[in-house]
Order: sequence, then C-alpha cells, then structure tokens
Amino acid sequence: MRPSKRAPDELRKVTLERAVARYAEGSCLVKFGDTHVLCTASLEERPPMWVRGSGKGWVTAEYAMLPRATLERTRREVTAGKPSGRTQEIQRLIGRSLRAIVDLGALGERQITIDCDVLQADGGTRTASITGAWVALHDCLAWMRARSIIATNPLKDHVAAVSCGIYKGQPVLDLDYPEDSAAETDANFVITGAGGIVEIQGTAEGTPFSEDELLELLKLAKLGTTKLVDLQKMAVM
Amino acid sequence: MRPSKRAPDELRKVTLERAVARYAEGSCLVKFGDTHVLCTASLEERPPMWVRGSGKGWVTAEYAMLPRATLERTRREVTAGKPSGRTQEIQRLIGRSLRAIVDLGALGERQITIDCDVLQADGGTRTASITGAWVALHDCLAWMRARSIIATNPLKDHVAAVSCGIYKGQPVLDLDYPEDSAAETDANFVITGAGGIVEIQGTAEGTPFSEDELLELLKLAKLGTTKLVDLQKMAVM
Amino acid sequence: MRPSKRAPDELRKVTLERAVARYAEGSCLVKFGDTHVLCTASLEERPPMWVRGSGKGWVTAEYAMLPRATLERTRREVTAGKPSGRTQEIQRLIGRSLRAIVDLGALGERQITIDCDVLQADGGTRTASITGAWVALHDCLAWMRARSIIATNPLKDHVAAVSCGIYKGQPVLDLDYPEDSAAETDANFVITGAGGIVEIQGTAEGTPFSEDELLELLKLAKLGTTKLVDLQKMAVM
Amino acid sequence: MRPSKRAPDELRKVTLERAVARYAEGSCLVKFGDTHVLCTASLEERPPMWVRGSGKGWVTAEYAMLPRATLERTRREVTAGKPSGRTQEIQRLIGRSLRAIVDLGALGERQITIDCDVLQADGGTRTASITGAWVALHDCLAWMRARSIIATNPLKDHVAAVSCGIYKGQPVLDLDYPEDSAAETDANFVITGAGGIVEIQGTAEGTPFSEDELLELLKLAKLGTTKLVDLQKMAVM
Amino acid sequence: MRPSKRAPDELRKVTLERAVARYAEGSCLVKFGDTHVLCTASLEERPPMWVRGSGKGWVTAEYAMLPRATLERTRREVTAGKPSGRTQEIQRLIGRSLRAIVDLGALGERQITIDCDVLQADGGTRTASITGAWVALHDCLAWMRARSIIATNPLKDHVAAVSCGIYKGQPVLDLDYPEDSAAETDANFVITGAGGIVEIQGTAEGTPFSEDELLELLKLAKLGTTKLVDLQKMAVM
Amino acid sequence: MRPSKRAPDELRKVTLERAVARYAEGSCLVKFGDTHVLCTASLEERPPMWVRGSGKGWVTAEYAMLPRATLERTRREVTAGKPSGRTQEIQRLIGRSLRAIVDLGALGERQITIDCDVLQADGGTRTASITGAWVALHDCLAWMRARSIIATNPLKDHVAAVSCGIYKGQPVLDLDYPEDSAAETDANFVITGAGGIVEIQGTAEGTPFSEDELLELLKLAKLGTTKLVDLQKMAVM
Repeated sequence: MRPSKRAPDELRKVTLERAVARYAEGSCLVKFGDTHVLCTASLEERPPMWVRGSGKGWVTAEYAMLPRATLERTRREVTAGKPSGRTQEIQRLIGRSLRAIVDLGALGERQITIDCDVLQADGGTRTASITGAWVALHDCLAWMRARSIIATNPLKDHVAAVSCGIYKGQPVLDLDYPEDSAAETDANFVITGAGGIVEIQGTAEGTPFSEDELLELLKLAKLGTTKLVDLQKMAVM
Repeated sequence: MRPSKRAPDELRKVTLERAVARYAEGSCLVKFGDTHVLCTASLEERPPMWVRGSGKGWVTAEYAMLPRATLERTRREVTAGKPSGRTQEIQRLIGRSLRAIVDLGALGERQITIDCDVLQADGGTRTASITGAWVALHDCLAWMRARSIIATNPLKDHVAAVSCGIYKGQPVLDLDYPEDSAAETDANFVITGAGGIVEIQGTAEGTPFSEDELLELLKLAKLGTTKLVDLQKMAVM
Repeated sequence: MRPSKRAPDELRKVTLERAVARYAEGSCLVKFGDTHVLCTASLEERPPMWVRGSGKGWVTAEYAMLPRATLERTRREVTAGKPSGRTQEIQRLIGRSLRAIVDLGALGERQITIDCDVLQADGGTRTASITGAWVALHDCLAWMRARSIIATNPLKDHVAAVSCGIYKGQPVLDLDYPEDSAAETDANFVITGAGGIVEIQGTAEGTPFSEDELLELLKLAKLGTTKLVDLQKMAVM
Repeated sequence: MRPSKRAPDELRKVTLERAVARYAEGSCLVKFGDTHVLCTASLEERPPMWVRGSGKGWVTAEYAMLPRATLERTRREVTAGKPSGRTQEIQRLIGRSLRAIVDLGALGERQITIDCDVLQADGGTRTASITGAWVALHDCLAWMRARSIIATNPLKDHVAAVSCGIYKGQPVLDLDYPEDSAAETDANFVITGAGGIVEIQGTAEGTPFSEDELLELLKLAKLGTTKLVDLQKMAVM
Repeated sequence: MRPSKRAPDELRKVTLERAVARYAEGSCLVKFGDTHVLCTASLEERPPMWVRGSGKGWVTAEYAMLPRATLERTRREVTAGKPSGRTQEIQRLIGRSLRAIVDLGALGERQITIDCDVLQADGGTRTASITGAWVALHDCLAWMRARSIIATNPLKDHVAAVSCGIYKGQPVLDLDYPEDSAAETDANFVITGAGGIVEIQGTAEGTPFSEDELLELLKLAKLGTTKLVDLQKMAVM
Repeated sequence: MRPSKRAPDELRKVTLERAVARYAEGSCLVKFGDTHVLCTASLEERPPMWVRGSGKGWVTAEYAMLPRATLERTRREVTAGKPSGRTQEIQRLIGRSLRAIVDLGALGERQITIDCDVLQADGGTRTASITGAWVALHDCLAWMRARSIIATNPLKDHVAAVSCGIYKGQPVLDLDYPEDSAAETDANFVITGAGGIVEIQGTAEGTPFSEDELLELLKLAKLGTTKLVDLQKMAVM
C-alpha cells in the first residue's frame, strides 16, 4: 500500500497552468500533487559563447528551490556562494532533456533559458520541472513565431519525465517524498512523445536491482510519460 | 495623470492570501497590483550566535527575486556568488521593520526567518514584502501559541510599508515600476499600526527635495499604511 | 547630558585637511572628533559599462574600515570574501549623494572613484565620508580643469551629511559612538548647499518615532550641514 | 569499425596497479587504455556530521583531472573557485557506487575518502575511477583489519563500472574519447560482482534510444564489468 | 646617480611615530620617505586553533594597501574576493619576522595581530611594515605588562628590514619605487638587533646575480638595519 | 647523522623522466627521492593581457598537490575556493625562475604554462618542480622548433633548484621532510647553469643565522644545482 493510497501505476494529480508569469515569453506552473514548480522561458538574443558563429541556438535551464519549499527550511544556495552538486545535476538534466527535442538550427543564434523554481517540494521536482518546462518552452517558441523571429517550429516532439522506484518490494510510478525517502531503488526517466528514451538515471539506494526490475520500472515510466504527454497536449491546445 | 490612472493617494489593489505554503509555520502571498511576493515564516529552535544566553529571540528576513519576475530576465545571485548590495539592503530593512513590533524576550531563544521571494515585480517589492511578512509572522506566532511553545503573544503591533514619490511634480502613493523609474524622489516608509515611524528612506533621484515635499509624502504614507494595516487585520481575522 | 558634554545642537570638532595623499587627483582627511576618514578621488578614463556611449560620466564610491579603526579589532572583509551588507549600503549612499550635485554630462565619459577609508571610527563614519568626499571630488575636478580635461565645472553645489538622533529623549546633532549605540532613533541626512534634501534615512532602534520628532531631527540636520558646508567652503578657498 | 579497431564487445587493455602511493592506506593506479587514474584511500577517524552518533561510518570520493590530462589544457577548478557541475556529478557517483558494497555499520564511525585524480584522460574516466577505487578501498580495509581497527570485513562485494554506447549505429563497450564524442547514446553502468545494477545513467546525445537498444547496452555492460571484476580479483589476490 | 640623489648606502628619511591609533594596544605610523604604513597591534585572548592547549601564543600579521596608495588606483582585494598572492607572501613574511624575536611561551595562549595598512606606497612597503610592526608589537607587550597580563617580556630582540638592490650596476640601499621598478636584482633582508639574519629573499629580475653581489647587498642591509634598530630604540625610549 | 643516512652534501636519488604525459607539448616526471612531481608544459597561442602587443611571450607556472601526496590527507584547495598563500608563493617562484632563462622575445606572443602536480611529497617539492619544469619547458620549445613555430631557441640556460638547511647544527643539502620539519634554517636556491643566482629564499625557523652559515648553504646549493644541471643535460640528450 502506497502512503498516498495510489495504485502502483497511478500518477499524482498533475496540472499544467500556462501563462502564469506576466513578463516571461512562456511560462507554466506545473503541479505533481504537492510538488509545485514555476517554469518560465526567457528568450535572449545573445547566445552562449560556444554556439556563436555556428548558426545554431541553445536551450539551457536553471533550477532552484525556495527556502521553505521543504518540510524544514533549506538554506539559500547564494549563502553558500554556489549551487550545490544536486542543483547542478538537475539543471544539466533539464537542459539536456529539452535540447533532445529542439532543432537548435531552426532556433537561430539565440538562447532560451528555462527557469524552474520549486515553490513546494514533495518529491519528483526534477521530473515535474522537465514536464512543465516543455510547456513554457512551447509557448516561448509560439511567441517567437507569432513575431516572425523564427520561420519554422524548432520543436520536434514532446518530452516528459517521471520517477519510478521499488517501494517495499513493489515497483511504483511517480514517487512522492515519503516513498522517495524509503525506496530501495529510484529511477528517473525522460521520454519523448514518440516513446524514445532521452535519459535514464537509476540508482540502487539499498540492494542493487536486477535487469527484470529495470524493465518493470521502464514499463511504468512509459505509461506515466504517455499520460504526461497527453496532458501537455491538452494544455497547449 | 498616473500611468495606472490611479488617484495620487490611491493604493494599487492589495490582497493578502494566508496559508499558501504547505510546510511553513506561517505564510502569505501578498499582491500590490502586479507585484507578487511569497512570504513564509520558518521557526528555528537554534537562534543566531549573538542572542544565545540572552533569553531573547531573533527575527530575520531574506529576500530574493525569481529570475523572470522582471521584464528582462535577471541573473540569479547564486551565479555571482553573493547577494547584491540591493538585496542586502532590502533584507536588512525587512528584518529591522519586523523586530520593531516584536517583543524578542517573549519569543524566547528562537529565531523566526521570514523569506520574501518575489514571484513578479512591478515596483514596491520591499514594501509589499514587509506588509506580507507581518501576516506570515503573525501566523507563525499563532502556530507557536497553539502548541504552547510561547506563553504570551510577542506581537506588539502591526507594521506595514509603502512607497511614495514625486512623479511629474505630483506627490503620489504606492509607485509602480513605470512611476518608480521616472520619479524625481522616491521614499519608503515603514509605519506601525499605532502610527509610529519605524523607518523612512527618502532619496532624490534628480533634484533634491524640500521639507514641505517630505511632509506631503509622509502624509500619503500614513494614509496608505493605515489602509494596509486594515487589510492585515481583515486577513488575520 | 551628552557623554561628550556637547550642547544638543553642537557638532564635534570638524576638520577638513586637503591634499593628504601624494598620488590622488584630490584627497581630504576629514575628522569629526575621533572619527577620521581618508577620502581620495581617482580619475579613470574608462567609465563603467552602463554609461558608455551616453556622453556622460559617473561618480562612484568605495568604503572600508581599517581593522583596528574600532574598539575591538574587526575582521577584514577580504577574509570573508565580500563586502558586508553594511559596507555596500554605505558606499551606495556616498555615491548617490555625490552624483546628486555633479553634472555627469559635463564630466564626459569618465569615472571618478572616491575611496573613503576609515582610519578611526567613533560614530558617524558615513556622514564624515560624504562631507570629506565632497572636498576630494572638488579638488579632483579642479585638477581636471587645470589640465583642460573638462571645459566647465561639473560641480553644481555642495553636499554634506550629518547624523541626528534621539538620545535619552533628547534630539541631538552628530552622534558619536556612545550616543549612537544607545540612541532610540538614529537618522542620517544628506543635504546640499542650497538646503535641498538628497537623502534621509531614519530608523527607530527602539520605540517608533513621531512626525514631530522627525521634524526636530531635520531642523538639527539643516543646522549641522549648513556649518559643514561653511567648513567645506573655507577648506577649498 | 571502431577507431581503436577493437571488437564491439572488447574492453581496452585494463591494468590495476596496487600500492602506488607511499602514504595512503590503500591505492591503485588504474589504466583503461590511455585513461589513467590514480586512486588513493584515506582513513579519517572523524566521520562527517551526518553519521556522528549513528555507529556507522561513511565512504566518500573526490575526483579531479590534472590540467594537462587532456588534449587541450583544462583550467584548474581552483581558479574558478569551485568544482564544476561535471566534477560534482562524478564524485557523487563514485561515492554512491562504493557505498553500495560497503557495510557502513561494520566500518564504525570513521570515514574513508577515495581520491580519484585523472593523470591522463581518453574517455571513461568515471568508470575507470570506480573500478580502481574498489581496489584502493579494499586495500585500505585490509590495512585496517591488519591493525585490528575493524573486526569484520565491511566489504560485501566487488563493484566495477564501464561505459557503453551506440557508435555509428553499433552498440559498443568501453568508449574511448573519439567514440565518446561521436556516440549517439552514451551510458554508464555500475554493476556488482553478483551482477546487481547499482547505477545506470543513459543519455541520448542525438536521437533518443529504444528499450531494445538499452537492453543491448546492458548486456555489453554486464560482460565488461564481469571481466573488470575478474581483474580486481586477480589484482588483490 | 640614484633618482633620489641619495648615496648608495643611504636610507630614506625614516620616522616612527607611536600611539597613532586611539583604540589599538600598540601602534606606529612608519615612514620610509614617501612610503607610509600604519601598523596596529591588537591583542586577542583567543589564540588560533593550532596553539590551543600548547601554553604558547601566536603573533600574526595582515597587510593591505589603500586603493590610492599607489600612482594608479589599485582595485580593492575584497572586490576580487581574496587577497592576492603578493599580499599573502608579504603578510606571511611579516608574521614570521616578528615571531623570530618573540618568546611565544612567555606570551601565553593569546594572539597578537599586527595590521600593516599602507597609506602611501613608494617602494619598500614590506620592509617598512616589519620595521614599524616591531614598534607596535613592543607597545602592545608593554601595555600587557602594565596590566599584568604577562609576567615577563616576551620580546627577545629587535627586528628590522630593508631592501637592497643592484640599480644600474650599483648596489644600493633602501630602494624607492623608481629604483625598484628598474633594478636588476632586488633583495629584502630581515635582520635582528643582534645582527642575525631572519629572512633573506633575493630575486634577479634580469641577469642572475653572483655570490659577490649577494655579499655586497648583505653588507648594505646590515648597515641599514643597524640604523633602523637605532631608530626603533629611540622611538620606544 | 641525517635520517636518510646521506652525507651532508649528498642529494637524494634524482631522476628526470621525459615524455610521460601523452598530450602535453613537453613533460617530465621528476623524482627527488620520495618527492615525485609531474611537470607538463602547455603551449597556448593566447598570451596573457600584459604582454599583448609587446611582441613578447610569457612563461607561467601552476602548482598543486594531490590530496594524498602527504602523510596525512590534505584538503583540496578547490574546497577552500582559492589557492593557499603557500601555493601562490610556490607557483610565482617557479614562474620567475623559468622566465630568468627564457628569451621572451624569441618566444613570440604566446604563453607556455608549466603545471607542477605533486604526486608524492617528502620535502623539497618546489625545488624538484623547478628542476623538472626546466625539462618540460625544454621539450615544449623543441616541439615548437620542430614545427617551425619559433625560429630560434628561446632557452638561454639551464635552471635548477635545491634546498639547503641547518639540521642539528650541520649545513646539509636537499632536505627531505623529516629534516625540513626539524631544521633551524631552511633556504631554497635557484641557480642557472652558468652559476648565477636567480632566487635565494632563506628563513630562520628558530635562531637567526649568520653570514657564514649563509655562505656555507650557498656553497652546498651550488654543488647540488651543478649536479642537477648535469642530470638535466643527460635527460635531454
């Protein structure tokens, strides 16, 4: 029995609210149950150094948590003077996931930065971020097309992410915080609308896991991301 | 004529929404028009070094803006490795304003940290922060009393803040961003429920201002903070 | 009775000694009693980023204290890796105060940096800094005119600063450290030669203050800055 | 055809040289072809904060590259003031991998730090690090048992790591730098002696990959880590 | 011919003014011609970690230059976030030089910090600092004895420092800035009252120097430090 | 009797192994007994700011120790966020020593960076670094001449370094760690092939030393560096 009483293959209630930030070119408030992330997309005409002169653009992401998104207050990273290793891992993951479904050539020499700020955290903040970031990015690109900044749509596909894990011996979908802290194995999957795997990150917290368990988690993840992609489609309709 | 078509002595629409953060002991989403600040109060049993052994507690504040709270994306301060001078000025101001109406002895050797995170910025983020922070602090103290952590109420009064300025020669109340960027003089007032002045910070951006102008701004500020205190009273009723 | 036995409206002994730094374009050792600040003005032909191409120049200030300027040794800020919030507040204040009386257009695309280094601190270091900085700036501009770097004098007026406060219920002028640490209310005023207010920063340390008290402090401040401006005039004569 | 002319399921020449650092409790110079990593294990009696009082110990890792381990000189991370996101990801991965096969209770309240310093980098530095780190850790634990610091062996199993990828459409084992920079998909596997999966990190650099491709990579990884574990066994015999 | 028209073995005019800092336990404004350094000695009852429990004390030094001590303004080190390599070299040298003539056991578990702040720099700031620091340290120790904080005098000898160099082929004593920037060889000597060498740091800027040249420089240095020690004796008489 | 049983004027066993780093333009693994330093030379076409436009090049050095080069593990400097004062002193010394024997004009507007990474430390790491760095630099310049990047050889002479000290009253050559920690006086000498002194840094750890002792140390140093230069000649033959 899951603490939230959900079925093993049941997502939390997911909502994707668009246009929540007045000034951003695209934005989305994504909720996976009690995990709430505000995603904004910002267009910058100045691309990073490494694409200048290449004719291509770049999509990057930054991630942070408000100090009291969590059960206990977390110290701001600016106080430590630098983003933690965990923060850097997550923002690199979000950026890679989005770049997998964007035609950087069609974007031109520009950068889109997706900021994912966690307002409330109940597990799965990185997967919620990726799922919501796609909506913010979609709307930013639509904004650019409406202004003829780009001629064609650089968005090649959807991308969504979900965590799966083995909790009390049972493979389950979309772990919340109580499950996440107790799971034997925890894996994050980033999957496209077409069903291709973009990223898989699986970690055994206790006992190592077997190939069969990996396949069961992957099956749940495909189920979950299919639903998330459907929700993205409805959101931007 | 003000860009927002408000009367010179008219506040923007102000709302104070309580209990918006699931995990915080107190919280308030304050809106001054398009300026939105999420204020959370966090109780920590470990007070800062300088009050240990004194029997007294401490109230402090931290302030930050989401990168896309603003018209143009602002770089995260963690990237620079330290809070800017502006951020430090603001969080020191919020902390002092709140400590002015709290009996630190009645709090006991504990610390309450108020985090003010600006979700959207249209001028007056520091005054909105102080006004909303009072509500979050109030609810945190109520939470503590309900659990008998404190015996008496350390809250001595209300405190609210508003900016005033001279815009196109006219003293006006509660400047929004277009007014703030063009005002000749800009002043922030922090005033208690009893009408006492806690802080006054006035700056001539262009021509220095006269004593008479200062008095007109103060009059507007008293009007504004009286209304804000009324809204606080309704919010926590 | 004030600890220094001064009358309520009496400044400390103030001296302004020019040309104390062999290499600087302008310099002034300002003493407000036992508060000693060395102010130097440095001309740099490279203005900051934000004025390039505007035809205008910039005046900025930096502020620091020698470690043993104070009763107890203070740790150098370089050890912490960054200027404290207090330092940043003060150097921003000095810069704004000076820019209020300089015609930045007449300066041309250059920067003048005023360094205010506190050799000894007995309260009022920021107000002494502003008062002495004006002299250093004046001499730097004279140096530039003598070399025909600028055609007209960008200096529009004098500017001086003084602190006032309510000490044991009595409004007093120019607080020294013993008064400053015990005052109920502490306010800094920056006022031009023409009597215009450039900055007012008032803080209630204990009980909030009233409008009447504010006006009494302002009256003292005008008296004090008038005398300081007279001393500046004599110094540069 | 692979640039190195290896068969798709062929590891580079791997050597594990023990006791290469005179002062460390355990050490191993691991070579995966032209990738050379010096791994040292250091016993510290002071465990990190989070295990104090728990009766358990901790195993952690740090990772760095010499500036000229690479084709072009890489700037030292100390110059930037902090480890890069990539470095932090890698050292967190090494630490998790080792903790998966150590009984932290049997270690007692101590910490073992494994330093993995890359002397030469030709791809696969993180997998070589994990594989060599196991040997250094083994020898450190043997050193401790020889001195009766621990009564039982905390080492529960072997752990080794290898990268696999899809290079020109072909799944291949143990990518070197030329393959790694051109691979469509790149995955790192950390697998125990018993064949359990500890970590899997797969990333599509270009086209997303399918479940079948994932399974092929996993099959190669199992083959590779089985051989690496055999080499570890021979090394510590 | 030296730019200053001094004889090859002639010091600049040296003055040592005591008790220049109101709050410090000892202080000295030392001038070597146009090089002016303010040295203060601060007693701290808390010694550094590495002497705690040893019964011994510590003497340390910090060194900094005011931004406009130099011909061109120098950026504050706090702006860079850390002391430069040059600053660290100098403050380590001053500390070692002073510890060479202090009986750290007689000091007890305390620390004396000597701050050397260069108000004006015309070459030889480190040697002036050491020479003036001795006076500040002497007065601090006298202050401590007067208050019976220490029973015996920990000061074992004088210590003074001077630079020598080969300028246009001629060995000269006490280089000023024009000489220092053009000298082929530059050496700093720290020598006790008894004539023992505490430190010698010689650097060939152009052509390497010979043993004979080294001996000539040492001869000049002994002459110079003998005079400096005489001046210290007169200063503290 | 020296702990290593060497004669007072006996170097440790010194080896200079070339071409140890596959990717560097020049490299040398230098061993002074148990002190092992990996020196690599990296050619960069972009010279530092201060030589641009001068037609001259630059040679610089960086120095670091692996964490477990030492008896006890040393914390990485990146963790502290900056190189220590000791590290900066050493890398500045290595750079100056090399520049003394290079014709920077013949190098052209380029930079060569010598990285000295200490793999194992038993005293004398800076002197071993300089001695090995010369070989790496030599090979880098040979590599450049072979590719006609430079027309003439910028290398004017050899340079080598050795430490000497007074250990139990006896002047000895090439101190190892046990001697270094107990020596009364410790001096490092950097001497060219022609016998010119480039740097001398002598420090009395306990009793100050006399001129005669300095001369004895210098004599030993000349003997030692003569042998080291012979070893360099054989190494690059």
